[in-house]
Amino acid sequence: MTERGRFITLEGGEGVGKSTNLALVVEHLRACGHEVVATREPGGTPRAEDIRRLLLDPVEEEPLDPDAELLLVFAARAQHLARVVKPALARGAWVVCDRFTDATYAYQGGGRGIDTARIAELEAFVQRGLEPDLTLLLDMSMDAAQRRLDSRLEGQGEARDRFERERGDFFEAVRRAYLARAEAAPERVAVIDAGAGLDEVKAELLARLDARMDAWR
Amino acid sequence: MTERGRFITLEGGEGVGKSTNLALVVEHLRACGHEVVATREPGGTPRAEDIRRLLLDPVEEEPLDPDAELLLVFAARAQHLARVVKPALARGAWVVCDRFTDATYAYQGGGRGIDTARIAELEAFVQRGLEPDLTLLLDMSMDAAQRRLDSRLEGQGEARDRFERERGDFFEAVRRAYLARAEAAPERVAVIDAGAGLDEVKAELLARLDARMDAWR
Repeated sequence: MTERGRFITLEGGEGVGKSTNLALVVEHLRACGHEVVATREPGGTPRAEDIRRLLLDPVEEEPLDPDAELLLVFAARAQHLARVVKPALARGAWVVCDRFTDATYAYQGGGRGIDTARIAELEAFVQRGLEPDLTLLLDMSMDAAQRRLDSRLEGQGEARDRFERERGDFFEAVRRAYLARAEAAPERVAVIDAGAGLDEVKAELLARLDARMDAWR
Repeated sequence: MTERGRFITLEGGEGVGKSTNLALVVEHLRACGHEVVATREPGGTPRAEDIRRLLLDPVEEEPLDPDAELLLVFAARAQHLARVVKPALARGAWVVCDRFTDATYAYQGGGRGIDTARIAELEAFVQRGLEPDLTLLLDMSMDAAQRRLDSRLEGQGEARDRFERERGDFFEAVRRAYLARAEAAPERVAVIDAGAGLDEVKAELLARLDARMDAWR
């Protein structure tokens, strides 16, 4: 019987460098000989990406109800788990996912103010006990993250999505909620100081990953 | 203080004549002097209609996970309740809705086989006790409904959506689940024999509606 693969999530607010660091994690795991599925939430399948577009689309005339937003997030998650994450883990592949349920607690809980008990209810409904084996939380002061985000958005001329349009206090609340999640589950969540230089962040990330992989052997 | 409006839903499988009868109910209520909001589920707002499209789109390469389908239905419902139904009822308007949560029990429960306890969990999550004041269930034998549906789809050259593509046993299960809902809540659900002639159906529908409106006076 194939051993079940490991499920690793990367978390963090806007502008903390998740994409760069996700690529690093994937490359490292592949160099260790693992089959790796790199994916993201919300999204990760064509249908779940359709749901993601509904979540990110800033329809000014019709604000999205907070419950509707939360249910859409978990609908995308149910589809992604059923089609991508669970089959990959079952065949022994490792899954590295850009955002997962910690992000729901951070954005919909911290940011939108939805009661965490309501999030926990849907988490249990959809995940039935499945959770990441390791979560790498990239943490950075709001000022630094905002500067990175501004320069990225200006450089690429991108329009801001529904979340990127939020203001400072929203992102402060997101960051606090992320840190509270890490504090509540220190055995699962590793907090990485993403405000350090690129090489330092890389070194810390890989050190935390290797330590966990040693523990799993 | 304005009296809260009444919330009336029309239910039934494919081909039972919901559209015609919904128009009849709306016309009757307006003739009685009520402000009436006619709407439908899934849908009823631009964003909820976007979710409806995801639900109905037959993406053959990527079947929709049953949990994802259920969560999408309730996401659309949360948005519709927040933006249309609750504000209308609060200002004293009557709401007539083409399908609501009984349809979820019938299609996702009866048709897809999702445990009704899971549907009840999301119903409580989203509706927080709100339910229709009256549900008119148009019931018809499967054979008759299928003939009507076939002739409609052929006549209009429409492509069948994800639900219209289902087979006979799916629709039998939908019908049984609808009837079970009616049996469990006879004070709320009126079952109309939709297999009778148009005039008879109309007469029965309006008689049941008037009886209920008298009781509300």
